[in-house]
Amino acid sequence: MSNINEVSELRTVKIAQVVRSYVELAGHGSAGGQRSADEVAALFADNAIFESPIGGDVHRGVGAIRSAYHSMWDGREQGVNLVSLNVAGGEAAVHVQVVLSGQRVDVIDVMTFDDDAKIASLRAYFGPSNIVTL
Amino acid sequence: MSNINEVSELRTVKIAQVVRSYVELAGHGSAGGQRSADEVAALFADNAIFESPIGGDVHRGVGAIRSAYHSMWDGREQGVNLVSLNVAGGEAAVHVQVVLSGQRVDVIDVMTFDDDAKIASLRAYFGPSNIVTL
Repeated sequence: MSNINEVSELRTVKIAQVVRSYVELAGHGSAGGQRSADEVAALFADNAIFESPIGGDVHRGVGAIRSAYHSMWDGREQGVNLVSLNVAGGEAAVHVQVVLSGQRVDVIDVMTFDDDAKIASLRAYFGPSNIVTL
Repeated sequence: MSNINEVSELRTVKIAQVVRSYVELAGHGSAGGQRSADEVAALFADNAIFESPIGGDVHRGVGAIRSAYHSMWDGREQGVNLVSLNVAGGEAAVHVQVVLSGQRVDVIDVMTFDDDAKIASLRAYFGPSNIVTL
C-alpha cells in the first residue's frame, strides 16, 4: 500500500512538472514560437490527441499535433500566466490566462498522461465569453 | 448551418445557466446545506456519474449522487467564488475557489451534459497542493 502511494506521489510530481513545462513553453516571443512548438510536441505521446477548443478539430498523433502548434505559435508572441494547476488521479486540469494580440483568454486545459508521463490527450475549454479585449 | 449554430448557441447558454446554478447552490450556510444538496442533485441526469476528487470514489446514479452531496454539505457552511466558467462543444470546465473550515480550495470541475442540459458527468480536479490554510 505504501509502495502504491509512493508511486502515485512520484507520478503526481512528474505530471505537475510536465504541465509546468507546457505552460512555460506556451509563453514565448515571436522569434521563439517555432522552437516552442517543437519542444511542446515532444511532451506528447506518439498517439496523443489534441483538441483546442473542444468542439473544434481533433488532431491525432504527435506529427499532426506538432503541425497544429506551429500553425498557432510560429511568429506569434504570447504571454501565459498560470492561475491554477490541479492534479488528481493521474490527470490534470490547468487554468491559464493567455495574453496575445491585445486580448486575454481564460483557458482551462484538461490532460491525461501515459505511463511515462507523456501527454496522452489535451482538450482545451474556452469559448467567446472567455475572451476579453484589453 | 445557421440552424446548427443557433441550437449550439442556445445549448451553450443553457449549460452556462446550469453551471451557475451549481456554483450558487455550492455556496451555503450550515442550515442551508441540506436543501442545497437536494437541489443540486436535481441538476443531474438519472444515470449521471460524479467523481470528486478524480481518483476517489465514483458515484453512479442520481440517488448515490444526492447521498454524496448530503454527506459533504449537510450542516457545513462554505463559500464559493466563481473564477472562470468555460463552455465549449457542449461541455464545461469551471474553476471555483471553495472556502470552508479555515481553508481555501481551488477546484476545477469538468462537466458533460445530456440533451436536456442535465449534468451527465461531473469530475472534480483538486489535490493537496490546491488547499491553502487561511
